[in-house]
Amino acid sequence: MEAAVPLPGTIGTSASLALRLGQVVFASASLLFMSFRVEFFGYTSFCYLVVIMGLVIPWSTTLALVDAYSIVLKYVPRQPKLMCFVIVGDWVLSFLSLAAACSTAGVTALLLDVGQLNCPVKLCRRYQLSAATAFLSWFLSFASSLFNLWLLPSL
Amino acid sequence: MEAAVPLPGTIGTSASLALRLGQVVFASASLLFMSFRVEFFGYTSFCYLVVIMGLVIPWSTTLALVDAYSIVLKYVPRQPKLMCFVIVGDWVLSFLSLAAACSTAGVTALLLDVGQLNCPVKLCRRYQLSAATAFLSWFLSFASSLFNLWLLPSL
Repeated sequence: MEAAVPLPGTIGTSASLALRLGQVVFASASLLFMSFRVEFFGYTSFCYLVVIMGLVIPWSTTLALVDAYSIVLKYVPRQPKLMCFVIVGDWVLSFLSLAAACSTAGVTALLLDVGQLNCPVKLCRRYQLSAATAFLSWFLSFASSLFNLWLLPSL
Repeated sequence: MEAAVPLPGTIGTSASLALRLGQVVFASASLLFMSFRVEFFGYTSFCYLVVIMGLVIPWSTTLALVDAYSIVLKYVPRQPKLMCFVIVGDWVLSFLSLAAACSTAGVTALLLDVGQLNCPVKLCRRYQLSAATAFLSWFLSFASSLFNLWLLPSL
């Protein structure tokens, strides 16, 4: 069964593919800023961010592949079970990445404010960039989940 | 126009009243733990938590009054504009309070870990309690917004 015109942004459309690719890019950027030559494992919040971004990247990559596949084959997947799984997964990951971004931002602000901890400006700048890209990744992930949620009553 | 049987948890039901009262209680507890004889204004995250909890309390109190009013008068408000306003407000406040709870939790964990900052155990315990009650308040607020969102397609 196929819907006549899929709403832009729902699974299987090019808008969804763009959103997913954006998520992957921002989540990877956040992970790299945080983990490349930085002792992130000293701080609980930073470890949490790394774990969550490590979950977001494979999830969004898989769904980007599904989108690309359905654009090429002109087939839009609309199985209710699959859609529910995608929607719930999106929501959970969206909340988790918001939580990770916020706690990173809070800790970075504290590190910058206090100054008596060993946080050179260059390092703190990277923490800030990591938090900012995590927020962008959250925002795109939230947009995806909203679009897909809109589809739920029509299943 | 009245719906035949309102879904439990949507606006105007006793389940919704209970959720709203829970939000008010937990948000007030979080605010008190944070602001009563504590220098919270030294930390950005803690100021943010206080601001958000100061928004959640009047919002949930107002909606609790609406619920109580509609339980007593046996009238369920179902104006689409009002419902949209309530749903959007709930979502926004739910995200903001999750963000506040997470950044507070992150900063508290850091303060406890590092130890070289002036954070006596008794004070840090209160920060933790404040973060925990903020999480509970977020959870109830999220439940409210989910129940009300469920109502949206039937408007």
